[in-house]
Amino acid sequence: MEPSNQQAAVGVDLGGTHARAAVVTAEGRILTQARARVADDRRPEAVVARIVEVVQEALAQAGLGLEETHGLGVGVAGQVRGASGVVANGPNLGWREVPLADLLEQALGTRPRVVNDLDAIAWGEVRHGAAKGHEEVLVVYAGTGVGGAFVIAGQPHHGANGVAGEIGHVKVRGPEGAACGCGGRGCLEAYLGGKNLSEGLRREALTWPDLMEAAGGQLDGLHPGVVEALFVRGDARALAMWRELGEMFGDVLAHAVTLCNPSLLVLGGTVAEGCPELMRLTRERLSQRASSVSLEALSVVAAQLGDDAGVVGAASLGRMVFESKDGGS
Amino acid sequence: MEPSNQQAAVGVDLGGTHARAAVVTAEGRILTQARARVADDRRPEAVVARIVEVVQEALAQAGLGLEETHGLGVGVAGQVRGASGVVANGPNLGWREVPLADLLEQALGTRPRVVNDLDAIAWGEVRHGAAKGHEEVLVVYAGTGVGGAFVIAGQPHHGANGVAGEIGHVKVRGPEGAACGCGGRGCLEAYLGGKNLSEGLRREALTWPDLMEAAGGQLDGLHPGVVEALFVRGDARALAMWRELGEMFGDVLAHAVTLCNPSLLVLGGTVAEGCPELMRLTRERLSQRASSVSLEALSVVAAQLGDDAGVVGAASLGRMVFESKDGGS
Repeated sequence: MEPSNQQAAVGVDLGGTHARAAVVTAEGRILTQARARVADDRRPEAVVARIVEVVQEALAQAGLGLEETHGLGVGVAGQVRGASGVVANGPNLGWREVPLADLLEQALGTRPRVVNDLDAIAWGEVRHGAAKGHEEVLVVYAGTGVGGAFVIAGQPHHGANGVAGEIGHVKVRGPEGAACGCGGRGCLEAYLGGKNLSEGLRREALTWPDLMEAAGGQLDGLHPGVVEALFVRGDARALAMWRELGEMFGDVLAHAVTLCNPSLLVLGGTVAEGCPELMRLTRERLSQRASSVSLEALSVVAAQLGDDAGVVGAASLGRMVFESKDGGS
Repeated sequence: MEPSNQQAAVGVDLGGTHARAAVVTAEGRILTQARARVADDRRPEAVVARIVEVVQEALAQAGLGLEETHGLGVGVAGQVRGASGVVANGPNLGWREVPLADLLEQALGTRPRVVNDLDAIAWGEVRHGAAKGHEEVLVVYAGTGVGGAFVIAGQPHHGANGVAGEIGHVKVRGPEGAACGCGGRGCLEAYLGGKNLSEGLRREALTWPDLMEAAGGQLDGLHPGVVEALFVRGDARALAMWRELGEMFGDVLAHAVTLCNPSLLVLGGTVAEGCPELMRLTRERLSQRASSVSLEALSVVAAQLGDDAGVVGAASLGRMVFESKDGGS
């Protein structure tokens, strides 16, 4: 076994389409990894079987047994009930009340630390990415969905039942607002989440010829980047849409910054990365609407680890549990 | 010295009108206390002199010297810049950038822990009041001003520069909103804070004869409780006013609960205590607008320590600093 393998942990990132596992060093370097599709059969037992496969494949490549690693962490696209590892609600997996930690423990013989995927991503950025060295951090991902996580006093903040940081489900509109995957209405994610945003664009396209044209005449070509391109060309409707969305997102970020007073806000996800003008308007609004003293402490930066943040952070969270059981050795 | 004195700490509660000091046991019991008026001269040096007087008076009654106590904490009605003990902004004292911890250290020979008054109140309720035993708590006071504080993982959460929990300065309206004491516009406190609310009522009274009548015909008799009484009698305008304010307050509480996922929300302050119907509407809105999983974990209770929470909490925070320096003995 190479020296770098000696304290490797395993991280799993489970989304609605794929499960990915990686063997990760204590320094956050990915040694080996494997990926499998889960979209064809999302029943919990099928997904658990896919996770077992990718974990074993990544371990085999690294020449390690699971018992030789320093912990196992899983980040899942859904709300997780604290230390129980139960996925209360995972809209992209179609899951409700799935005891994922129990199922994986039965299948693998090791109990994993199961957290919300954004908690894993945030922890990855804090330990090995954009937020390294910060003690008070808010990480917000605007991608297919919209999620967030806090690091407080240098520790992941999960809250009373594990759903702290769910910024995508802050209500920005009343009961007449857009329907959200969580079952509620008017959530930020119902407007800003890439999936919902693209669906909304398909409806707008019926009365917005320039949008259809910019998407190459294809409904499937409609995504947030198309509006961003129209905005840059000065399209009035794109301007109005981005202004409204930037105000919405900026207001919610401002609430979070005023309430929690982080020193760093890390913004990531495909919508954030693909729409710099939307992010500019969002940050402008944030700077107008957060309390002035909280803004003095705040820097805003882009996420650094990209797609790797989830597995790197999950491995690191798994390692924390392992080391606390092991007396910190 | 009686046994109960042996681990006493001193807590100070500094508002815009009075400074109060108390000698408090490790169990949160007030042994002795003293109070002085600061409203006549709010210059920092004058206020510091009053604080020294009340601290010495409370200590003399207890037969203790400051050097015999287990710490000194001060809660001040203003935004405090973290461990520096600088009051960045204290609207009710008319203070900006006052180095209160330094000034008190010079005057007393002991460096106090200076925090926002709501942080002290929250900590009092957590250690000795309504939130005893809870690890994830949000305390919100709607009184003259509106403030809040978080306890996270069992510890006071101050944030990157000491202003976490400033729920009164979450913006509920745009730049055209009401002016707030913090210099901003559209803050929750500009609508819900007792001082601003009563001022607003004096303007409303010009076109609302029932309000004037309910206040006994006196502008000075206008306070939130008068609207509460009209609401109970079914007055349409009071209904509309309380509904709007309850939605505003409930929305901000819902944002905070969704983001931070506390197990307990403690509501206190004169507006909360004097207006049960407004609080009912607020809680109704909170339960409609926070994320459903965060609501599963949440209980809402009234504050228990009343006016004592500030000195009791400040003493306890002072004690924490003392004991951490002392190696936890």
